[in-house]
Amino acid sequence: VTSRLPEVGTTIFTTMSALAVQHKAVNLGQGFPDFDCDPALTAAVTEAMQQGHNQYPPMAGAAALREAVAAKIEALYGHRYDATAEITVTAGATQALLTAILAVVQPGEEVIVLDPCYDCYVPSIQMAGAKPVRVQLTPGSFRPDFAAIAAAITPRTRLLLINSPHNPTGTVWTEAEMLQLQDLLAPTNVLLLSDEVYEHMVFDGKKHLSASRFPGLAARAMVVSSFGKTFHVTGWKVGTVAAPAALMAEFRKIHQFNVFTVNTPMQVGLAQYLGNPAPYIELPAFYQAKRDFFRAGLATTRLKPMDCSGTYFQTVDISAVSQLSEADFCAWLTQEIGVAAIPTSAFYGDGFDQSMVRFCFAKQDSTLQLALERLQKL
Amino acid sequence: VTSRLPEVGTTIFTTMSALAVQHKAVNLGQGFPDFDCDPALTAAVTEAMQQGHNQYPPMAGAAALREAVAAKIEALYGHRYDATAEITVTAGATQALLTAILAVVQPGEEVIVLDPCYDCYVPSIQMAGAKPVRVQLTPGSFRPDFAAIAAAITPRTRLLLINSPHNPTGTVWTEAEMLQLQDLLAPTNVLLLSDEVYEHMVFDGKKHLSASRFPGLAARAMVVSSFGKTFHVTGWKVGTVAAPAALMAEFRKIHQFNVFTVNTPMQVGLAQYLGNPAPYIELPAFYQAKRDFFRAGLATTRLKPMDCSGTYFQTVDISAVSQLSEADFCAWLTQEIGVAAIPTSAFYGDGFDQSMVRFCFAKQDSTLQLALERLQKL
Ligand SMILES: CSCCC(=O)C(=O)O
Ligand SMILES: CSCCC(=O)C(=O)O
Repeated sequence: VTSRLPEVGTTIFTTMSALAVQHKAVNLGQGFPDFDCDPALTAAVTEAMQQGHNQYPPMAGAAALREAVAAKIEALYGHRYDATAEITVTAGATQALLTAILAVVQPGEEVIVLDPCYDCYVPSIQMAGAKPVRVQLTPGSFRPDFAAIAAAITPRTRLLLINSPHNPTGTVWTEAEMLQLQDLLAPTNVLLLSDEVYEHMVFDGKKHLSASRFPGLAARAMVVSSFGKTFHVTGWKVGTVAAPAALMAEFRKIHQFNVFTVNTPMQVGLAQYLGNPAPYIELPAFYQAKRDFFRAGLATTRLKPMDCSGTYFQTVDISAVSQLSEADFCAWLTQEIGVAAIPTSAFYGDGFDQSMVRFCFAKQDSTLQLALERLQKL
Repeated sequence: VTSRLPEVGTTIFTTMSALAVQHKAVNLGQGFPDFDCDPALTAAVTEAMQQGHNQYPPMAGAAALREAVAAKIEALYGHRYDATAEITVTAGATQALLTAILAVVQPGEEVIVLDPCYDCYVPSIQMAGAKPVRVQLTPGSFRPDFAAIAAAITPRTRLLLINSPHNPTGTVWTEAEMLQLQDLLAPTNVLLLSDEVYEHMVFDGKKHLSASRFPGLAARAMVVSSFGKTFHVTGWKVGTVAAPAALMAEFRKIHQFNVFTVNTPMQVGLAQYLGNPAPYIELPAFYQAKRDFFRAGLATTRLKPMDCSGTYFQTVDISAVSQLSEADFCAWLTQEIGVAAIPTSAFYGDGFDQSMVRFCFAKQDSTLQLALERLQKL
């Protein structure tokens, strides 16, 4: 067979998780919690199953869940989406992103991504037969470089993909930046795909500035989120997309022939659980405490922590410790020191290596403590 | 936005289910059971959640589920797939089919489908930028027309899509037909995508002849199945694909950037539940009894039931009752008689209308009885 994705191998997350298991390393690589979700959430799903919610839900998602999501977005970001026509439940954020790209991008068109970026973006663009155009975030600060973005826009540019809070760097776009983006896109036909799966992990009193807050962006944006990240159930694979009705109509055409619809009991359980806002309102403080615990520990090692304003990822500068490439360092760290991390070069199209690796701190304090003890040996 | 699927609207299943709800009709349209699954299955999922199986499973699926599926296929069909390299768990059969097509078909290549066929096949081919080539099953008998299939194969043909037991006609391919297909494909490079989601619904002592039983087919086939259909949980959206390692490697490249992976607690629960073969061994008798009950009732109406050897669908000839088009008849039947059905013309590229509509008999006897009483008014 000729491959549609000839350059693609196994993802770095799968590779590093497998290596971590093999070497009994503390796995701070792939982003997922090592603690469990709220028992009230699993109880809600159990109840949904027992009540017989086991057959196809509506194609766009269970009505109660779409309503709950629309209400949550309105309460948090002040934008009212129509739950019937503008919200769709997806089998996780990855499926949402591919479906969104297939929905609005034609073969031969261009899609701009900002490096470093999550590893599914570029293959998804390639699957759609479109051309990925990579623009770097400013090295070091990882702020958007608007001049570079503007320069990358051509008549063939159909879509810009952004991600805040940002994986892997933990940066969070500011209001000024969102406004600047709105101005930049205003005279163009470029659509926006906004990956906001870490929306509930923003620290130090900062706010998550969803694209839905900005009318000029909301009108052209497909906004992706993830229950897995917010509620500590990364394995449930339930996400959402919000978009204006005309974009959503195209999204759903693809969605109905990709997955058709998404697990019913999970949707019904999540709809019920969303009735209580406490779990996501309290999430920033929960993760900020973990970040602070982990950073305090890193201060006692020779790894230099970089800024982290959001997500459950902490990047560190390894240059004082090792001259290995990031990838070799991560492999070595997993095998010899017993802590798995992710090379941020994996998030760059050109493998840009800036001696920076990513740790996930969505872990029990005891796990972080064990990792820190091992990292002290460096 | 320019649409990738300009001809696509809402699926006939969504449309008819909505109409059924609106008119309080007995819904024998969209295929799903109106009875619940085995409580042992939901209990297994609850246990999985409570044991903390809530984070990402391996990309290809939970190892225990892949092992259980490989063992089941070997026991039933005599072909041993390597659970590590040749089985992948999908977010339902629809996602499996699109992913399979994206994996092996290049833009501009041709894919043969046999009309009438399930409504996601052709849009999936179009999403991949490929060309659907429609060959009709022999009208009336719905047997494969091998001369027509052979005539449709060109140097650009990359894939043939087959489906047995067959939705919507309820026909089941014979051993002679599978052997003839094997011979036909032997001198070609055409791959096979075999949709076997109704594998456990074959009646009258007939056998399901999986492509995996025939070495010449197994070597070129991606075989799709569905737990939703087999275990009365259509809303869970968990399916599988089995294929030789080289094909599976390409499948997984797409899969990992489409959904990445599939709901963990459902996978763990299903793996445990598969330990007992009774539920799927007993399924043919269970559905045969429903078919017989429904057909006996139809014999007292003016609708003429056609053959049904498999699936949970029964087609009927409406020509003695109505001269309306199938689609108009189904709308009328839903609104005026209070029974929803699916026009089989929706499964044809050219809307071929042979006065044949499809009922789903995966319903409680009381539901079927109520529908039959209404159908007697015709
Ligand atoms: C889908 S596996 C990767 C999880 C994740 O989002 C990350 O580690 O960046
Ligand atoms: C995915 S909705 C349609 C269910 C089904 O398989 C059918 O009715 O043919």
